[in-house]
Amino acid sequence: MWKKVVIFLLIWDSAYSAKLISRLDRESILDAEKKHRTGGNAYLTEREAQANDIVTRLRSKILLEGIANSTGFAPAMHFFQAKPLIESSPIFRMLKAMPKGSVLHLHNTAAVSSKWVIKNLTYRSEAKLCEVNGTVFFTVRQSKFCDSEPQKSITKLRAQNASAEAFDLWLESFINLKLRDPELMHTDVNTVWNDFQQMFDASKDLLMYKPFFEDYHRQMLREFYDDNVQYIELRASLSKVYDANGKDYNEFEIVKIISDIVDSFKKDHPDFFGVKIIYAKHRSIDNETVESFLEKFIALNQEFPDLVVGFDLVGQEDINNPLILFTDQLRKFEKTAPYFFHAGETNGYGSEADLNLVDAVLLNSRRIGHGYSLYKHPVLWKMVKQKGIALEICPLSNQVLRLVTDLRNHPAVFYVSESVPIVIAPDDPGFWDSAAVGFDFYYALMSLAPHSAGIGFLKQIVWDSVKYSTLTEPERTQYAELLQPKWESFLDFIIANKVLNY
Amino acid sequence: MWKKVVIFLLIWDSAYSAKLISRLDRESILDAEKKHRTGGNAYLTEREAQANDIVTRLRSKILLEGIANSTGFAPAMHFFQAKPLIESSPIFRMLKAMPKGSVLHLHNTAAVSSKWVIKNLTYRSEAKLCEVNGTVFFTVRQSKFCDSEPQKSITKLRAQNASAEAFDLWLESFINLKLRDPELMHTDVNTVWNDFQQMFDASKDLLMYKPFFEDYHRQMLREFYDDNVQYIELRASLSKVYDANGKDYNEFEIVKIISDIVDSFKKDHPDFFGVKIIYAKHRSIDNETVESFLEKFIALNQEFPDLVVGFDLVGQEDINNPLILFTDQLRKFEKTAPYFFHAGETNGYGSEADLNLVDAVLLNSRRIGHGYSLYKHPVLWKMVKQKGIALEICPLSNQVLRLVTDLRNHPAVFYVSESVPIVIAPDDPGFWDSAAVGFDFYYALMSLAPHSAGIGFLKQIVWDSVKYSTLTEPERTQYAELLQPKWESFLDFIIANKVLNY
Repeated sequence: MWKKVVIFLLIWDSAYSAKLISRLDRESILDAEKKHRTGGNAYLTEREAQANDIVTRLRSKILLEGIANSTGFAPAMHFFQAKPLIESSPIFRMLKAMPKGSVLHLHNTAAVSSKWVIKNLTYRSEAKLCEVNGTVFFTVRQSKFCDSEPQKSITKLRAQNASAEAFDLWLESFINLKLRDPELMHTDVNTVWNDFQQMFDASKDLLMYKPFFEDYHRQMLREFYDDNVQYIELRASLSKVYDANGKDYNEFEIVKIISDIVDSFKKDHPDFFGVKIIYAKHRSIDNETVESFLEKFIALNQEFPDLVVGFDLVGQEDINNPLILFTDQLRKFEKTAPYFFHAGETNGYGSEADLNLVDAVLLNSRRIGHGYSLYKHPVLWKMVKQKGIALEICPLSNQVLRLVTDLRNHPAVFYVSESVPIVIAPDDPGFWDSAAVGFDFYYALMSLAPHSAGIGFLKQIVWDSVKYSTLTEPERTQYAELLQPKWESFLDFIIANKVLNY
Repeated sequence: MWKKVVIFLLIWDSAYSAKLISRLDRESILDAEKKHRTGGNAYLTEREAQANDIVTRLRSKILLEGIANSTGFAPAMHFFQAKPLIESSPIFRMLKAMPKGSVLHLHNTAAVSSKWVIKNLTYRSEAKLCEVNGTVFFTVRQSKFCDSEPQKSITKLRAQNASAEAFDLWLESFINLKLRDPELMHTDVNTVWNDFQQMFDASKDLLMYKPFFEDYHRQMLREFYDDNVQYIELRASLSKVYDANGKDYNEFEIVKIISDIVDSFKKDHPDFFGVKIIYAKHRSIDNETVESFLEKFIALNQEFPDLVVGFDLVGQEDINNPLILFTDQLRKFEKTAPYFFHAGETNGYGSEADLNLVDAVLLNSRRIGHGYSLYKHPVLWKMVKQKGIALEICPLSNQVLRLVTDLRNHPAVFYVSESVPIVIAPDDPGFWDSAAVGFDFYYALMSLAPHSAGIGFLKQIVWDSVKYSTLTEPERTQYAELLQPKWESFLDFIIANKVLNY
């Protein structure tokens, strides 16, 4: 019986008389909707209100121009075409200056610009490659991906090539979807996912080489720091790292390596708050393997309680194992392994990937990765809101991986309208010619938010990235103290009217 | 104060304890969501349940195949590419056999297949054309679209051409977006709308020629009758029709012409229920003109109370006048002119086109044309549901006119999940190589509805097209009596397992 009552309340649509409805007016409806949505009810200080006037005026101008002339209107376009337009836009300049707070959905081995990987790692003497059926795999050792194909020195190959630039672009095409997919070649989700997964394999052996692994993660911190990100919760599989002497580093050692890199970076950049790790394994495994990973998580968490803070299962949901397959194992560990499940990253409606959302919520997932299809579930989205489960929204990822074309159709628009908690994240920016999270914020502000959105919306998004992080209360206080002066500088930047100089 | 109470109730999210929520289980959530959505709570007779088993098994097979191999999965594809796949699908064959009930959103001058227009009207000796700046205008008289350009006999031009087929295709490209837009040329909304509006102008003078006007409307009835449509509410501007003697026919005379055609068609097809007219004028006008049109509507409605039943304003909302501009005039007539406004046919969020939805609801629009952006309005969509305002969903139109690419991202998915009332309509099928409404139903079933949808969903959609029509109670009874045996035959068709032969 109690179940029926709860469900009834969850879908109850509001009891009121038709007569009352008919007396509502325009202003009261619009005002109620404004207050109801993300950031619509945010308290603005005097200076925030001042900055808000500037931002909303600017946005309004851009959005009205985009209605009159929709050609070249970046918020409606695919990132691969819109990137130069966005880069030169005053909104993007403003967002560059904004402290973004936390990035809560990022896969470590796809975090760094493909260009940096090519221009740095492949220029080092250890870097080799093999070609298997037209696909390149980078490595520095005898790689399992090479079968019997020869592994050639990349430096030598480059030297033999007439144009180093052309050669590098060819190399980059194996770890950059934009180069691989002139946008219109991939017409469906599975095809693009195929190339996407391939990129993890192409770079894996290169990145797992300890000196490269370290440099890569240092560069990751640099790119996100430069984009004004203060804190990262990183999905990492902690696959074995190796060095030139053939030594393998296990999960504990890898966490220590990352931890040392972060500490060193923090020493040089005291205004960077840090990194925590969500242990994330591919979902194409069996029950026993899941259980062994969960046990590994517990051990890692005991060794590094402040550092390894959560567990997730990753990989294309549509065609891989659904959460329900692992219910017994996941239930067993739910008190000790905080979950941060990918769920509902699909255009399906009632498919297994879509129903991962139900299981993620029932397994008390602390946040949900993507939650793209959640809006189709009237009971579930209200539960998510009520329980305060934040959705990790990755606009570019969903566009590039072919869930949606025009991001104004992204379901996050609905989540904004209903104040379902969201954070903005880049997922795998290195693989699609993005950098850190700035471009995702551009689309969040310009495509997902209503015409009237401004500082209130940004404030809520940024501070929710603090609220929905896994930080402890004392850490959170410290973090907020670091973020607040940056937020004030951001307001200064806007009020000094730098934003409008375009 | 009452306003606040109502608004609070409209956005109130459900009060219940977190403890109760945590005890909900998978089945109760899924069951509640199923019952909550369009058709999920429909009563199924024994034979309907039998047919439902067949349909859901078939759909499930197709949807699972589409997940495993997403290449060539029609429900995710653009209609211009998917059409042959759809035509050969068992689902489409089944939907062909389904009585569709009412088509409640259709513009008369874009209702008939472009191919029929070319192969019939332009083959008649009166048909002429002129070319102005690379664009063709069809006519039979001295047309205002031709400026000083010569008007040439189409028959003669065709005879001079090496290939009649190539010539006809060229002609058709001026009234068919598929031929004009190899899908990927139009990258934005305004560009495609430009070509789309152009098509109305290209064919206008041809279709307003009385003998052609009559044949065209007869053909319209034939195409919809052949697609198993029983009743149509037609948006028509009732622009002047003319004959060979130079006589102009006014709105009253045109209604009479249409009425006579319908009566004659019904005599030959007693199982066709009829046509009513919604007087629809372009929104790019001033207040005085709106008032004159409203007065004209009142006069037409008095003359033909059973035939001219509503008023609408049409044309691209993004760049034309919003409803709020005409509030005084529209308020003045709201008791006597039932409104059926186009509103929210936009990707905007808080733009004037989007806010047309607020005004449409406050002006007591009986239905809403498109309502594409309604899901962004938490107060408004609940009002729409509460007031029983049906949304006229036109899947193909929204795709072809570039609001959305993958129709699984169409907001109607949300309306289905929340049982916001919808009807399925084709808008302007003649202009995009569709025919009547069958293809729209294909996408409704395969892209907008959940995996478990079957007969319950179809039953609700079909019978809601009766419920949300403007028919009077006695007419509705008669209409239902006509529809019911057709529905039974449809069940026969499925149960005889014809559907599964593929």
